[in-house]
Amino acid sequence: MEIALSEMSTQLQNLAKKSILDLQPYQPGLNAKDVGIDKELIKLASNENPIGVSQKAIEAIKSSLENIYRYPPDRPFSLREKIAKRCGVNPQNIILGNGSDEIIELIIKAFLNPGEEVILSEPDFLIYKLAAKAAGAKIVCVSVKNFRTDLKRIKLAINNKTKLIFISNPNNPLGSYLNQGEIEDFLKDIPENVVIIFDQAYIEFVQADDYPRMLEFLDKQNLILLRTFSKFYGLAGLRIGYGISNPQFIDYLNRVRLPFNVNYLAQQAAAAVLDDETFLNQTKEVVSEGKEYICNSLNKLNFFYINSATNFVTIDVQQDGREFCRRMLAYGIIVRNLKPYKLNNFVRLTIGKKEENERFIKALLEIKNG
Amino acid sequence: MEIALSEMSTQLQNLAKKSILDLQPYQPGLNAKDVGIDKELIKLASNENPIGVSQKAIEAIKSSLENIYRYPPDRPFSLREKIAKRCGVNPQNIILGNGSDEIIELIIKAFLNPGEEVILSEPDFLIYKLAAKAAGAKIVCVSVKNFRTDLKRIKLAINNKTKLIFISNPNNPLGSYLNQGEIEDFLKDIPENVVIIFDQAYIEFVQADDYPRMLEFLDKQNLILLRTFSKFYGLAGLRIGYGISNPQFIDYLNRVRLPFNVNYLAQQAAAAVLDDETFLNQTKEVVSEGKEYICNSLNKLNFFYINSATNFVTIDVQQDGREFCRRMLAYGIIVRNLKPYKLNNFVRLTIGKKEENERFIKALLEIKNG
Repeated sequence: MEIALSEMSTQLQNLAKKSILDLQPYQPGLNAKDVGIDKELIKLASNENPIGVSQKAIEAIKSSLENIYRYPPDRPFSLREKIAKRCGVNPQNIILGNGSDEIIELIIKAFLNPGEEVILSEPDFLIYKLAAKAAGAKIVCVSVKNFRTDLKRIKLAINNKTKLIFISNPNNPLGSYLNQGEIEDFLKDIPENVVIIFDQAYIEFVQADDYPRMLEFLDKQNLILLRTFSKFYGLAGLRIGYGISNPQFIDYLNRVRLPFNVNYLAQQAAAAVLDDETFLNQTKEVVSEGKEYICNSLNKLNFFYINSATNFVTIDVQQDGREFCRRMLAYGIIVRNLKPYKLNNFVRLTIGKKEENERFIKALLEIKNG
Repeated sequence: MEIALSEMSTQLQNLAKKSILDLQPYQPGLNAKDVGIDKELIKLASNENPIGVSQKAIEAIKSSLENIYRYPPDRPFSLREKIAKRCGVNPQNIILGNGSDEIIELIIKAFLNPGEEVILSEPDFLIYKLAAKAAGAKIVCVSVKNFRTDLKRIKLAINNKTKLIFISNPNNPLGSYLNQGEIEDFLKDIPENVVIIFDQAYIEFVQADDYPRMLEFLDKQNLILLRTFSKFYGLAGLRIGYGISNPQFIDYLNRVRLPFNVNYLAQQAAAAVLDDETFLNQTKEVVSEGKEYICNSLNKLNFFYINSATNFVTIDVQQDGREFCRRMLAYGIIVRNLKPYKLNNFVRLTIGKKEENERFIKALLEIKNG
C-alpha cells in the first residue's frame, strides 16, 4: 500500500524536535551482504566474546522457555543481588538496563535539561554523543592526548552549565585506560553540579594493577559506573547491562525507567553466566593469549597499535581505514573502520579465536605486501 | 560496603530534572510474595496469553541459542517484512521496539518539547502518563464517558500547545473500543500540530465488524499505530512490539532509537509465532469462549462489567477493589485492582484457561456470599 508523503513531509518536520533534524542513526558496521560476500565470515568488529556462549547460560534459557508468555520480573532482586555480590556492593546500588545503552538513556532522561552541557572525550563511544544530541544538549568535545582521555582538560572544560561527563575506561575505540592516580586527581574538587558516568564495558578484560578502584569513589561523588553483559559475558544478543551508583541515584533512574525493560531470558542467562567460572576463565585466557599474539605480530610487521586493556586492538593500518576494511572483507574478515571516530587510518580489531587471529595476520601481511 | 548518603542527597536532588522529582515508578501489580501465599497461583492480572507459548517460537529460540553472543540485527528486515505483510503495509512503515512501551518513548524523544501538551483519556494505559510526565509535558486528561474514550472532548481539548494525543483502542483498562465512524469524525479537521498515537495492543482479540480500519488513515494524518507481541502472541517475557506509520515518521523515530534495542531471541520468536496459525487460532478460541463464559456468569451473579473487545473483562466488584484483590489472592487468584486508575470498585480480570475462569467464578461467588 502506497502512503503519500508530499504534504505531510513538511508538516512532520515542523513537529519533530529541532535536535533530531540533523541526527543520523548509529551505523552498526559493515557486513557481508553489503558487499556481496558469501563465504563464512570471521567477525572481529563488534568486540564480542571470542569463544561464544556459556553453556550454563544456554541451559538456563532452555529451562525458562515455557514462561516467556509471562511478563518478566521488573526489578529482579536475586539477579541484582548476584551482581552486587560480585561487584562488592548492595542490590540497591544496581539498576538493570536493556544493554548499558539504556542506562545512558535513563541518566539523560533523569538529569539532562535542555541547554545543559555534556562533556565527552574524543574519540569515545559514539552512543554518548548520539544520545546527548537527541536530547538537545550542548556537546563539548575534548580531544584525547596520546590516545588517552585527557582528564585535565575535561576538568577545565567544566562550567556552570555542565551537567554530565561521560568517560569510558578503558576507552572504546582506543583501548587505553586511566589509572587510579589520574582518577583520584580528576575527581578531586569536581564541582557539585556535575554527574560523572564511567563506562566500564571492558573492565573484565583489564589486567593492570593500577586500574582505578572505582567503587571507592561511589560515596564521594555523584558518580555512576556502567557495566555490560555484552562483551566478556558473551550475551550481546540478549541486551542486558547495569549501572552501579548510590541508592538515591538508582532510585531517580528507576523513576524514569519503564517497567519490564529487561527481557526474561536475558535475566536468566545473566544469572547463569555469572556462575560459569570455566567459561569466564577460558574467555580471559583466549583473549589474553590472542592479544599477545596479535601485538607481537603487529610489532614484527611494523604496524603501530595502541596498547590495549580490552578485548580489541586499535591499529594504524597505514592506509585509508575504510578501504582497508573492504580489502579485509575480500578475505572474509570483518574489522571495524574508525573513520566515524575521525581516526581515518585506524581500524579496531576484536581479539578472536586463535585461528581467527592467525587468519587476520595472514591477510594483513598480504594486504601490506599486495 | 556502606555508601554514605547524607550530603549527596540534596546535591543530587538539585541535579535531577524537576519533572522527575514527584514521579513514582509504575507498580507492576500484586504478587504472592507480597502477601505470603505459597500455593500455585492463577495469574489473571497481566493480560497474558491464556494458553502459554507457541511451540514454534520455542523451537526458533532453541535453534538460535548458539548465536546470542553476537549483537542482533539492528533493524531486522525480514521480520519487518513479515510483520508488514501481515498488516498490509511495507517494511519501511514498521519500527520495532523493546516492547511497544519503547515506541512510546521514542515518540516522546522525537517530538515532545518541554512545555508542550499531551492529551490523554482517563482512564487509559498508565504508561502514557508516566512517560509524558518524565519528559516534563503538561498533561491534559479527558474523562471517558460511559466507559468509552470521549473523542469529541479530546478534540475540544486541543490547543496550539498540544503535540501528542495517546488513545488506546481497545481501551486498557476498560476493554471498550471506538468504531470506524467515531474515528473518522475524530480525525476530520484535526489541527496539523498534533501527532496521534493509537495503541492497538489488543487488536488481535477484536471481533467487531465496525472496528476502525486504521491503516486507511495512515496517509492522511500524522498518526502512528502501536502493536505488541506481549498479549495475543504470548511473548510478554521477551519484550517486542512495533509501530506502524508513514516512512518519514518511522525515520525520525529511528534517529532517536539506540541500536540493537530488540534482543535476538525476541526477533526469532516473533518471526516464528507469526507463522504459528494453530497457536493463534487456539488463542482466539480460548479467549472467545472464556469471555463468553465469564460474562454469562457475571450476568447470572449480577455483577456489572464493561463490554470487552479484548482478552480481559473489567468488573464492578461491588466493594473496594484492592480489598477484593486481597480476598481473591487468598483463593490463589491474582486479578488487577484498578484503584490506580481511580476505578475504586473495579477489577480487571484477564481471560484465562477454562479451569482458571471457573475457579475465578467459584471464588467470586464465595466472596459475594461470604
